[in-house]
Amino acid sequence: MAGNGLLDRRHFLQGGALAAAAVGAGGAATAETLTKAPWMTAPGTPFEGYGQPSRFEAKVVRIAGNPPNAPGTGASRTPLQALNGMITPNGLHFERSHSGIPDIDPDAHRFLIHGLVKRPLVFTLEALARYPMTSRIAFIECAGNSAVLFAKDPAAATVQGIHGLVSCAEWTGVPLAPLLDEAGVDPKAEWLLAEGADAAAMSRSVPLGKARDDALIALYQNGERIRPANGYPMRLLLPGYQGNMNVKWLRRIKLTEGPTHTKDETSRYSLLQQDGRVAEFKFPMDAKSVITQPSPGLAMKGPGLYEISGLAWSGNGKITRVEVSADGGQSWAPAALAEPVLSKALTRFRLPWRWTGGSAVLQSRATDETGYVQPTRAAQIAARGARGIYHCNLITSWGVAEGGEVKHVYA
Amino acid sequence: MAGNGLLDRRHFLQGGALAAAAVGAGGAATAETLTKAPWMTAPGTPFEGYGQPSRFEAKVVRIAGNPPNAPGTGASRTPLQALNGMITPNGLHFERSHSGIPDIDPDAHRFLIHGLVKRPLVFTLEALARYPMTSRIAFIECAGNSAVLFAKDPAAATVQGIHGLVSCAEWTGVPLAPLLDEAGVDPKAEWLLAEGADAAAMSRSVPLGKARDDALIALYQNGERIRPANGYPMRLLLPGYQGNMNVKWLRRIKLTEGPTHTKDETSRYSLLQQDGRVAEFKFPMDAKSVITQPSPGLAMKGPGLYEISGLAWSGNGKITRVEVSADGGQSWAPAALAEPVLSKALTRFRLPWRWTGGSAVLQSRATDETGYVQPTRAAQIAARGARGIYHCNLITSWGVAEGGEVKHVYA
Repeated sequence: MAGNGLLDRRHFLQGGALAAAAVGAGGAATAETLTKAPWMTAPGTPFEGYGQPSRFEAKVVRIAGNPPNAPGTGASRTPLQALNGMITPNGLHFERSHSGIPDIDPDAHRFLIHGLVKRPLVFTLEALARYPMTSRIAFIECAGNSAVLFAKDPAAATVQGIHGLVSCAEWTGVPLAPLLDEAGVDPKAEWLLAEGADAAAMSRSVPLGKARDDALIALYQNGERIRPANGYPMRLLLPGYQGNMNVKWLRRIKLTEGPTHTKDETSRYSLLQQDGRVAEFKFPMDAKSVITQPSPGLAMKGPGLYEISGLAWSGNGKITRVEVSADGGQSWAPAALAEPVLSKALTRFRLPWRWTGGSAVLQSRATDETGYVQPTRAAQIAARGARGIYHCNLITSWGVAEGGEVKHVYA
Repeated sequence: MAGNGLLDRRHFLQGGALAAAAVGAGGAATAETLTKAPWMTAPGTPFEGYGQPSRFEAKVVRIAGNPPNAPGTGASRTPLQALNGMITPNGLHFERSHSGIPDIDPDAHRFLIHGLVKRPLVFTLEALARYPMTSRIAFIECAGNSAVLFAKDPAAATVQGIHGLVSCAEWTGVPLAPLLDEAGVDPKAEWLLAEGADAAAMSRSVPLGKARDDALIALYQNGERIRPANGYPMRLLLPGYQGNMNVKWLRRIKLTEGPTHTKDETSRYSLLQQDGRVAEFKFPMDAKSVITQPSPGLAMKGPGLYEISGLAWSGNGKITRVEVSADGGQSWAPAALAEPVLSKALTRFRLPWRWTGGSAVLQSRATDETGYVQPTRAAQIAARGARGIYHCNLITSWGVAEGGEVKHVYA
């Protein structure tokens, strides 16, 4: 049994266990004892063509980094502490833009496949949309997510500020492989260049093997056309790979013999090693997890039963196990994983916790189907040093103080 | 082999099959032959806290019935013809309101469990949110969806107009069963009454067995707090049951010996039988499917390869098979089902079709894991008559004319 109040993951569902969690017991409450609320006394508002969140949720928004110096250039983070489940709603999916969000007319947009192919192809959106589609629920994570965990001191930040560059959606579009077959790939081609139609012409090199495996030209995000901030009218989806390789506003794919070494992969997104050398290419995002509730800014409200809840993901397959510790990693208890557990998608984990009111250090640790286990901070820094800023997937610690305040700590 | 051009569901993915679908071949196209688009010549727009769809998608909206006579009272339909995948984005989830959308202050809202219980309970949102949660992707369908298919003549309407009262989301919330255990249900209780906090106090009776099975007090919809139109801050989720039983703006659950026979279940949502008698209660929505692309308003653009795509669902479990016909039901071909196929969720099906340019009648037919097969229009009317308006799940026919126009037809 794990220490400091962690309970069995099935505990809450066992008969009789809940009484301890009773809150707001009603005594002799009846429907009449509840004051008639003002919203029951007059008709509500009419229908909207496109609905919006409640005005009481106005604080649940993405927070952008780098303003006001470079409008639209930087990143905008998902408020993970306010969300639950595995899907990120489209309005809150994180974004990373290199020169703002282009306002693309879908009828004027063209997508080109060229380079080392027998037959270059140009697609309108309408032409592309006639091809067979597939759907998959996949996370996208910016390679620079969580980089602050390498800093010397813990961050005075929320989970949004630290880990908010990861989101998950159902993406629907046209698999790339049959399009490449139609263009007729030259046997010399082993890579491709993918370029966006933003003003930065953001571009990345992708191994042909990944393009043939599970790459998608995504047209829809959670059922509707992709949002402008996420690549409207089309983006490349490379499940599990570094976020910016999932090129938004995709305008061309050029088949090449080797990588193109674009500005976006030499000046950024490369991995500084312990020995000072740089690894230019590390594509899949390794297994990672983070507790979203409780987390900094969400103070505990008195001793009692709570649910610890968070997200786990791996760019290399399915999450097979998430463990939670309430004593800074001395003991661990397995969390329940919410179905469906999908490859390269966010997985929600949950575990009941009886908080005594004392101090605690909460951690989560993910394992994926390759057997890879999320490393401690000490282990990741020992392996890589602390000067790199990409692919940070070390275990995060939330310190719970007596009184209930939650803060980022190192443990 | 099914007639009139239907292809094997794996056809598109076989090497060499695609050449016939080539569109917009580029000849000697290079990146330079594509005119530099205006959105590549200047920085784009900055970040938004809460994102919105592209302005070019302004027509993709819900369409409300019954305006302007009764603002907010009626239904608002999902534009299924413009969507793909299985998830409905929150802004486009269908809604049915009986007295508009209440503007509920979540801090002032209370949820009561009372009636035949040992200990009545009152929950604030904050108290409820401490309980263990579960997530599930589930469809909700209004019992009155598709009722126009009983009319004497085919409807001059889109799939949105005919079938738009069905949507699907990931719902996250607190299972009802342990809350009932905590309240201590009297052995005499076999039903419950669920009532909303809208001005209509919309209320329905629910068998206790369903409440103990998979009922959820849903707080989140596709990751974020439920939208006002869909029950903010909480709704009852009864997976697979008639839409309005999933009571929005839930304010109380009262345990009762029998059904309460509320106005909302005697004046509406009851099932008129062939013999003129009314069945007050039929809860699960039977297996159903509809082709969303092509569909009325989406004209074919010349002979060639197309993907037929649509949605299938069952309130009684998983969809196990969807068949498609292009000749009005004379021959059928099995469609591919998009993973994950989940119980009581929308399932996307797809099948390639080579349209010759001649006339065709497209149909889809769903089978669920109970073995139930979606009935023809003739069979459903023979069994029930055509005067009922609820639980219509008969096979829909789209007529494709020479020239490519698509219309609702009877076949």
